[in-house]
Amino acid sequence: MHTPRHGRLIGASLGPGDPGLITRRAWAALQSGARWAYPVKRAEESSYALAIVRRGGLAVPDDAEALVFPMTHDANLLARAWTRAATRCVELLAEGRDLVFLVEGDASTFATFGHLARAVRELAPGVAVETIPGVPSFAAAAARTGVTLAEEDETLAVIPANYGVAVIDRLLDEFDTLVLMKVKPRIDEVVTLLEQRGLLASSRFVERVGAPDERLVDDLASLKGTTVNYLSLMLVQNPRRTRDDTPRQRGCRPRRAKVASATEMTQEPEREQEKAGTS
Amino acid sequence: MHTPRHGRLIGASLGPGDPGLITRRAWAALQSGARWAYPVKRAEESSYALAIVRRGGLAVPDDAEALVFPMTHDANLLARAWTRAATRCVELLAEGRDLVFLVEGDASTFATFGHLARAVRELAPGVAVETIPGVPSFAAAAARTGVTLAEEDETLAVIPANYGVAVIDRLLDEFDTLVLMKVKPRIDEVVTLLEQRGLLASSRFVERVGAPDERLVDDLASLKGTTVNYLSLMLVQNPRRTRDDTPRQRGCRPRRAKVASATEMTQEPEREQEKAGTS
Repeated sequence: MHTPRHGRLIGASLGPGDPGLITRRAWAALQSGARWAYPVKRAEESSYALAIVRRGGLAVPDDAEALVFPMTHDANLLARAWTRAATRCVELLAEGRDLVFLVEGDASTFATFGHLARAVRELAPGVAVETIPGVPSFAAAAARTGVTLAEEDETLAVIPANYGVAVIDRLLDEFDTLVLMKVKPRIDEVVTLLEQRGLLASSRFVERVGAPDERLVDDLASLKGTTVNYLSLMLVQNPRRTRDDTPRQRGCRPRRAKVASATEMTQEPEREQEKAGTS
Repeated sequence: MHTPRHGRLIGASLGPGDPGLITRRAWAALQSGARWAYPVKRAEESSYALAIVRRGGLAVPDDAEALVFPMTHDANLLARAWTRAATRCVELLAEGRDLVFLVEGDASTFATFGHLARAVRELAPGVAVETIPGVPSFAAAAARTGVTLAEEDETLAVIPANYGVAVIDRLLDEFDTLVLMKVKPRIDEVVTLLEQRGLLASSRFVERVGAPDERLVDDLASLKGTTVNYLSLMLVQNPRRTRDDTPRQRGCRPRRAKVASATEMTQEPEREQEKAGTS
């Protein structure tokens, strides 16, 4: 008797928008003959992840399957959508063919794939899952704007902006670089905070990095009162951060001293050099 | 009269070790006819970055140039090495040919490329610099171990382990996932801290992720008293983290409540599900 064997569930990270940032392994998975599944917010709606591979020149297979993940905070609606998506994945995997799930950005970083994989394994514990990591949006945003996320003994924190300005204010003293994800609902108050702290010049706003309608904004004050895209983030650096409140461990020097000693460039403020650093 | 034009300086991120994680754009840059430069710790020593592209099947061009970046905390030695490397880059760029600098991991995340680009621009302000972002080691480590770095409203911090256990102890209460880079000199005390806090089961150790001698360790206690490689990190999660000390903003629910509501899976502890999540 034939025992059907489930296909593998593959989470293929595509990077945040530029099809050039798809890894060779994800590119191969897309062309492996595996069935494609991709997330949409509503039925019949376009998929951001699918648009990335289209821009890369790949044709979308006729049997590619859209899975609906609604943008809602309603726990019941969400739970039903997850169950439906996972059930459909298990049906497809039961055909024995691998299923490659398209993920924008990196599959482990603010993505839906972890959820989906857990829900699938709950329904079908034997399913093999493979995660292909990718370029996170904040790494692509850093490269585009010439910001260095962390060097040597620096520290990096990545939080949704929804934590609010009190938390952001505190973390600015603790981290060299703070990445604020999903800034849309908080844009005005975050810009006001950065103004008050004198950090506008060392902050960058990046929307839809790597997509054709990418937007890079250096003058963050100009964003006040405007509506930005959901796929936007801020890179905030605090060049005046001191580490007096943390133990000065071996090799953990403050940013400015380190840069001066390592490169003997003390004439210009470091932020000016960084702005000129990449294009 | 012919005015020589400098080539572009391209920082090509290669990901942390698996040549499959090189992006299509970095792959194309390597084969664009640009001259290659790659970092070594000592003259004549092998290069980790170069080994990644070799494993990918690319032949190293005869005129590829090694640049020495010594592993030292001696500021004078470092400054001289940086000046020498930047000077050599400017000489090569003056030939008019693009120069692609090979970077392991992501060029903006604990990499040498930001330094190098600043030093080159200091010597030759007109040089165009392009940064090709890549997969950071911690994203690859998360994919390999099935750890989700951040979901929905979770928070992520990435710090060198050298900050010491007092800082790590505090950050474990503030972040859902804490990535400890360069754990080698601190391995014993960090493992002891995780034992004391009951977090060994939700922590993973990853060494040389994606390389042929990659090592994944789930039983962190077994690392005590051993010597680990310099290219190693820990992913630490605190499933018992509460957010009582931070304002509960819209959409910022604690991890366990969120998972339960979103997937209706309340039978098993979440960490068990995550461990089974990917392979």
